[in-house]
Amino acid sequence: MVIRWLFQSTELQLRLTKHTDYSLRLLMYLAIKPDELQTIKDLSGRFNVSRNHLMKIVNKLVILGYIDSVRGRNGGLRLAKPKDSIRVSAVVEDMEPTLELVDCEADGGCPYYPSCKLKLALQDASKAFLEFLDGVTLADLVVNDKQLVKLVG
Amino acid sequence: MVIRWLFQSTELQLRLTKHTDYSLRLLMYLAIKPDELQTIKDLSGRFNVSRNHLMKIVNKLVILGYIDSVRGRNGGLRLAKPKDSIRVSAVVEDMEPTLELVDCEADGGCPYYPSCKLKLALQDASKAFLEFLDGVTLADLVVNDKQLVKLVG
Repeated sequence: MVIRWLFQSTELQLRLTKHTDYSLRLLMYLAIKPDELQTIKDLSGRFNVSRNHLMKIVNKLVILGYIDSVRGRNGGLRLAKPKDSIRVSAVVEDMEPTLELVDCEADGGCPYYPSCKLKLALQDASKAFLEFLDGVTLADLVVNDKQLVKLVG
Repeated sequence: MVIRWLFQSTELQLRLTKHTDYSLRLLMYLAIKPDELQTIKDLSGRFNVSRNHLMKIVNKLVILGYIDSVRGRNGGLRLAKPKDSIRVSAVVEDMEPTLELVDCEADGGCPYYPSCKLKLALQDASKAFLEFLDGVTLADLVVNDKQLVKLVG
């Protein structure tokens, strides 16, 4: 029963993972507050995400060079590079575990493999998706930064 | 514990739903076997999907006018229109419950709502994705139909 439910839960929709979604929201937050260091505790409250989950995301963003983690008592997080140099496509590619929209190996393997043109068509469509996001930087996402600061407090 | 696991299971990847994936595989199958009527029983075995699951997909494809269901003892399923008139983008749009790649209402609501430019950027990127698939028809997916027939038997 649980298994069945799990199976259905993975079917709900075509969505970015929460990892990618929160990475982008977090980077946006650091971009609209460039003069402050942010703590995990504060961010966790602001985005209503567990510290544990946020920590995993932050660790990855630090390793990937998007975020600097300043140690010490008054330490915290800040962007590691200018907001106009962070492309949304790069964050999506770095954080999504895969951009393969179909799984040829699921349910015992698809009988069309390896001659299937569907997979190729979807790969090309995903490229078009990323190419669009190549032209969007973190700076574009927070162009209305005063309004965002007001919203997040 | 189950809840936690469920939560993680939805995070695995950016994927088309199984509904969409199997809709496309099914339509491809009907396209490479234009002179036969296919039964749910046979298709279920071929794609290793439960009859129950397949039935739901087929019902939707019939209602949407992609498939004809011929009743009676020797009845079965066939394409309801020419394969070169079925655009992959249309099937994806018809079968995916949403093409919104982020959920602004999850986890108590995103603080950036409604001033967020991320959602708009992702909507435009999804449009680019679908526009690519506008140019791909079911006929393009089965252009190597002899090879596919050999693979599926």
